[in-house]
Formats: sequence, structure tokens, C-alpha cells
Amino acid sequence: MPTIVVDVMPKAELLDPQGKAVSGALQRLGHAGFGDVRIGKRFELTVETADEQTLAAVRTIAEEILSNSVIEDVVGIEVVE
Amino acid sequence: MPTIVVDVMPKAELLDPQGKAVSGALQRLGHAGFGDVRIGKRFELTVETADEQTLAAVRTIAEEILSNSVIEDVVGIEVVE
Repeated sequence: MPTIVVDVMPKAELLDPQGKAVSGALQRLGHAGFGDVRIGKRFELTVETADEQTLAAVRTIAEEILSNSVIEDVVGIEVVE
Repeated sequence: MPTIVVDVMPKAELLDPQGKAVSGALQRLGHAGFGDVRIGKRFELTVETADEQTLAAVRTIAEEILSNSVIEDVVGIEVVE
């Protein structure tokens, strides 16, 4: 069965405390050359068929169920297998 | 500044209760044709340059800091901008 990946990230203008924590850890551990770190969610949905109708349904699901449109953006929907 | 995306997913053999919850919600909301749902993390790292040295450092960071190798796998490292 094909897999559709949905990527959800916090809205760019929002503070990302977890990201800040990771970014700080990278500095303390001596990893130079790194700026901001932002952390979001990656959903892998197994589907029977990856046709247009399913992709349209996934777009709706991504917006309405997998993300909170107030604080997050759906940044990618991709058939991977 | 370029961005490197690191994708981390729970190991395939592990139970994913959050994924099961989403999968159940999709059924209840009448979305047919969907099987398993697995939920992982997506990291966006802003870097000064996306050269080979930085990519090697990101691989190490992904394995040692961004994921827990006991329960998670790094499934993708990609320069996106």
C-alpha cells in the first residue's frame, strides 16, 4: 500500500521554544555554523490507492485533523511509495 | 541561509499510540481507504553553508541529539533551500 507523507510545521512567526532548546544544545556541544532550529510533525498515512481523490482527502485531513491552523502550517504533502 | 530538514520516525516495529489515535479518528470521521498512521518529527535546521562537512555534522547531530536511536530512526536528511 502506498504511503502519503504530510509535513506540518509551526507558523514561522511563532516562537518555537523546543527549537530554541535544540539550537542552544547544538551551540553548547560545539556545533558551529547552525542558526535556528524549528521542530514540526511528520505524518505517514498508509492508503489503499494514492489517486487524486485520496490526495484531495489528505489535503482536507491535513488542514482539519493533522494540524492546528491557528499555530501550524501544512508545508508538504507527498506520495513516497 | 540554507535549511536542512531532518526527518525522524518511530521504529517500524514499535507501537505508535498517537498514530493509532489519528487512524481511529479518520475512520470515525468517515474517511475510508486509510490504513496505519505513524507520527514522527521534522526538524528544520538553518545552516550557514550546506557543504559536505555540514551535512556530515548534521548526520551525527541527527543520530545523537535529534533522535533516540533506541526507539526512533532518522529516515531523511535533505537540503531544501
